[in-house]
Amino acid sequence: MARDGGELKLLGMWASPFVARAKLALQIKGLSYEYVEEDLGNKSELLLSSNPVHKLVPVLIHNGKPVCESSVIVQYIDDAFAGTGPSLLPADPYQRAVARFWAAYLEDKLFTTWIPVYIGRTSEDRLEAARQVVAVLEKFEQAFEECSGGKAFFGGDAAGLVDVVLGGFLGWLRASQMMCGVRVIDPAKTPLLAAWADRFAALDGVREVIPDVQRLLEYNKMRRARHGLP
Amino acid sequence: MARDGGELKLLGMWASPFVARAKLALQIKGLSYEYVEEDLGNKSELLLSSNPVHKLVPVLIHNGKPVCESSVIVQYIDDAFAGTGPSLLPADPYQRAVARFWAAYLEDKLFTTWIPVYIGRTSEDRLEAARQVVAVLEKFEQAFEECSGGKAFFGGDAAGLVDVVLGGFLGWLRASQMMCGVRVIDPAKTPLLAAWADRFAALDGVREVIPDVQRLLEYNKMRRARHGLP
Repeated sequence: MARDGGELKLLGMWASPFVARAKLALQIKGLSYEYVEEDLGNKSELLLSSNPVHKLVPVLIHNGKPVCESSVIVQYIDDAFAGTGPSLLPADPYQRAVARFWAAYLEDKLFTTWIPVYIGRTSEDRLEAARQVVAVLEKFEQAFEECSGGKAFFGGDAAGLVDVVLGGFLGWLRASQMMCGVRVIDPAKTPLLAAWADRFAALDGVREVIPDVQRLLEYNKMRRARHGLP
Repeated sequence: MARDGGELKLLGMWASPFVARAKLALQIKGLSYEYVEEDLGNKSELLLSSNPVHKLVPVLIHNGKPVCESSVIVQYIDDAFAGTGPSLLPADPYQRAVARFWAAYLEDKLFTTWIPVYIGRTSEDRLEAARQVVAVLEKFEQAFEECSGGKAFFGGDAAGLVDVVLGGFLGWLRASQMMCGVRVIDPAKTPLLAAWADRFAALDGVREVIPDVQRLLEYNKMRRARHGLP
């Protein structure tokens, strides 16, 4: 039960960075919810009827009404539970726009750049993709320096939208070194993000939400084998 | 000058559906602004310094502070001018989520599906792309029927976020028949959207914002010639 007495149910899949994002938003807002793990090879009727357009997780069901797409879910949580826990978006319109800009930057660039680290055929493909992920993060490091004003999180003293978007990827980013030999959150290249990652993962309840690196590595190995990738 | 006395300047390019989206949001909110046409072959210093990450239009500059990315701009306009004109997003959190979901659907599917109509090499490529645009719109037609509740716009009685996102594409969608022989907003296939398009284009000031079809056709012809496309 969420604090307003409404029922919250999250349909997810443990390894998905998009599901992690929804979980992080719920965690930071201090909302409790029922979590339902989906078998994406055999999707539930509830998932198919709740997200008929994309048929993807995450789906947040609030009092029986489904909200789909992780970026929509995070903003919904902030809107619907405005009186509960910290706000995920700043109150100031300009600061909200800055947060939305960087959330969209990470959303657009990080996932597409990351995918070949995950499914690249050759080790060179994977290595090159990881180098590009580092470049995406280096650009973001500059923004973090400018926008956080020396505070702990992109959102300021508390974690917000941008922290949640990047935080959802944290498990996979941390797995990169063992996947392709490149440490993508590298204290030598992005020291602020490396320190951020440690601070973010230490937040109450966050460690439990970020998928375990060893489990992600095994999952990636299994997926690669299934698709005939070396 | 915007109604709050703040200065609004929009850096744009006349044929861009993303720029049209920002113009439509400003128009619907009743905000006046200075429009600056950019030469994308020779971008201004103002554009490059205002949007150093993407170097793209549109950029909205409000009292000297730049806001980039059309979807961020539209939400910024709604947040920063909450007391001016109609709201682009509904007040109800769930209805906001529904609007954001369909805005993201159009943003993700419509542009990527449309691009080969614009730059496809063969007429068969262009035709096939146009058929896929029709399929994207057919799915959206169902949502429009369910969500508008028989009202004039996706947002209800007044145009809102989703209307603005689709409206930004309207010039190009209307140009499709002469570009590839397929009428993508086809009253036989998507009667509600066809009627919506007429209603939307008739809104005060909107006709002036939507690029002229003949001019778009000439622009596309020039671009294709420049890239050696038949």
